[in-house]
Amino acid sequence: MKHTLSILVENRPGALARVVSMFRRRSFNIDSLAVGPTERRDVSRITLRVDCADHALSQIEKQIHKLVDVLRVNELPPGESVERELALINVAAPPSRRAELLALAEAFRARVADLGPDAIVFEIVGAPGEVDAFEELVRPHGVKELVRTGRIGLARAAAPVPDGRPQYVLR
Amino acid sequence: MKHTLSILVENRPGALARVVSMFRRRSFNIDSLAVGPTERRDVSRITLRVDCADHALSQIEKQIHKLVDVLRVNELPPGESVERELALINVAAPPSRRAELLALAEAFRARVADLGPDAIVFEIVGAPGEVDAFEELVRPHGVKELVRTGRIGLARAAAPVPDGRPQYVLR
Repeated sequence: MKHTLSILVENRPGALARVVSMFRRRSFNIDSLAVGPTERRDVSRITLRVDCADHALSQIEKQIHKLVDVLRVNELPPGESVERELALINVAAPPSRRAELLALAEAFRARVADLGPDAIVFEIVGAPGEVDAFEELVRPHGVKELVRTGRIGLARAAAPVPDGRPQYVLR
Repeated sequence: MKHTLSILVENRPGALARVVSMFRRRSFNIDSLAVGPTERRDVSRITLRVDCADHALSQIEKQIHKLVDVLRVNELPPGESVERELALINVAAPPSRRAELLALAEAFRARVADLGPDAIVFEIVGAPGEVDAFEELVRPHGVKELVRTGRIGLARAAAPVPDGRPQYVLR
């Protein structure tokens, strides 16, 4: 079963390498991973998708939590989280096909990031599954190149955040 | 100086760990990293931002290229690439502030991903700098949580792709 983990780490050399190696040593394959800045300059957030059994997940959560520089680990429970993914897709688009592709893009709220004489680079953001669906629809036109960020997520807006401060509480 | 690298790897256990460790061993700090699927099921793309001198970059490109499972490494040259980043931002939004925040979001083409009684989760995609600018503008309202994917990128639509096939050519 696939799980999305959100891990807050201090911005120190080696923090990402330690987390990635932990999964590697346990032979868990990471489907996707995104790491970037957070609301605090000294803290980064790693979001990753991993395929593993539920009991293995709780074990690895504990192991990650013990790593140097890790501040918090939690699973993003499906349904209680807002999850999104970004993709850039370069699709073959001769002038005769442009209108059809642009109509498809509008239906998926995909935007044109760049347009050349015979190709369009679309930018699409979607909840889980939406990027796959768009990719399937444009695939017959010829996908030249594609890049995806991997999924990121946050607790829903209605979820409580203790007295309005970021939840950097060790569990 | 900051550089964006795009690395194609075979989907095999340890491929990501090897790339990340390579930067770690050379004490290069990774600002952001995103890894996800590509147009080919057996290939993933790692996009990362790293701060290093130009001569150090070309050395590390060569080193990465020698790693097992690495198919291609290239820098995304600024100006010749389409680069985007995705962020989810949970902003404090009591009813009295909602209209103001929604107007700000519209100006930045940010979307409402979730709305609670006293918070809004915005989803924003931007070219380099745009996500930072939006974050700065909503910060005074109170950012409860924030997650960013790190930058991804592709060659521009007008760039040549050899006879329309994906560029999985070893350099």
